[in-house]
Amino acid sequence: MAHFSKTDLAELDKIFRINLVNSVTGIKPANLIGTISENNIANLAIFSSVVHLGSNPALVGFVQRPTDDVRRDTFDNIMANQVYTINHVAASCISQAHQTSAKYASDVSEFEACGLTEEYFPDWPAPFVAQSQVKMAVRLLESVPIQWNGTVLMIGAIEHIVVDDSVLEDDGHIDPSLAASVGVSGLNTYYRLSRSTKLEYAKPV
Amino acid sequence: MAHFSKTDLAELDKIFRINLVNSVTGIKPANLIGTISENNIANLAIFSSVVHLGSNPALVGFVQRPTDDVRRDTFDNIMANQVYTINHVAASCISQAHQTSAKYASDVSEFEACGLTEEYFPDWPAPFVAQSQVKMAVRLLESVPIQWNGTVLMIGAIEHIVVDDSVLEDDGHIDPSLAASVGVSGLNTYYRLSRSTKLEYAKPV
Repeated sequence: MAHFSKTDLAELDKIFRINLVNSVTGIKPANLIGTISENNIANLAIFSSVVHLGSNPALVGFVQRPTDDVRRDTFDNIMANQVYTINHVAASCISQAHQTSAKYASDVSEFEACGLTEEYFPDWPAPFVAQSQVKMAVRLLESVPIQWNGTVLMIGAIEHIVVDDSVLEDDGHIDPSLAASVGVSGLNTYYRLSRSTKLEYAKPV
Repeated sequence: MAHFSKTDLAELDKIFRINLVNSVTGIKPANLIGTISENNIANLAIFSSVVHLGSNPALVGFVQRPTDDVRRDTFDNIMANQVYTINHVAASCISQAHQTSAKYASDVSEFEACGLTEEYFPDWPAPFVAQSQVKMAVRLLESVPIQWNGTVLMIGAIEHIVVDDSVLEDDGHIDPSLAASVGVSGLNTYYRLSRSTKLEYAKPV
């Protein structure tokens, strides 16, 4: 077994550390967050930190990297408009989705630059990804600063869920393998999902 | 496409809503959190909400469900001892890992009840899972209450990473498919991972 102590982690080569610590938590969901700027430019960015926070009310979080050193269009747009969309990345769109992580100028829409299609629903001023079979409309509730490293937990209320009928099971579960939704490990390695087993609610035996 | 508005979500059958909203964020990592009680009982519980917060310093979060209504051994033990472990769930251990979600009495160790093996490393008073090929020792930094639903974001510093040599790539990336680590969707559906592609750092083209 390889062992890295806290001291080792601090002294590791930067890229090695980034790869190691970004992959140690296991598979992460690959999602695209869509926003619109005050100049009406549609923005799209890939995030692997979307996390379920609660189902009633339906709440979702994501971790925004520090905003004090570089331009963060997603963060700025959400703070200005309060609304955003979260869209699964499908296996057929991995390269386009990954490309949204490139640092485009703020007057460039990643939809156009990366080859994904904007889609709008009535009364929701943020762009969805037409290629995604699972998507949601989210309204910001709170941005919680994380004092330890300058990241921000963005907490939002899910106001709409739109899902292809073919991936929705009778009990409400969205099967991400039917949607060909992918996971990501570390910064840049993508994984397909294959269903192993669905287990019953566990009780002591 | 199926569409659920905020109103629909509030009015859905409870189980359907839980399944839907727990699966809408995409694949989640399946991890076991190990703690020890003040009475020296080893506790183990499955969580799907572990999230990367930063790599330098190495920080990890997880979402603790509300603690005011029911006994939460993991939360109580961490608040008492400050330390815990996070261990990947391997495909060979899905049923044992899922079984840790059953409500055992607080004097029962889920390791023994569910058939997983405790493992201890020097100077770390929290149990690891011997069957996991990827595991970390974490020290609590802060518990951040989420005002909207009573959940708590538990923020910890990674003090040790232990990983099987066979799953660690030269660039520091841990390949979760080599570790046979699994993902979970919703509450109870488990997925195996197969590597699709590793992409380069993206730049505008």
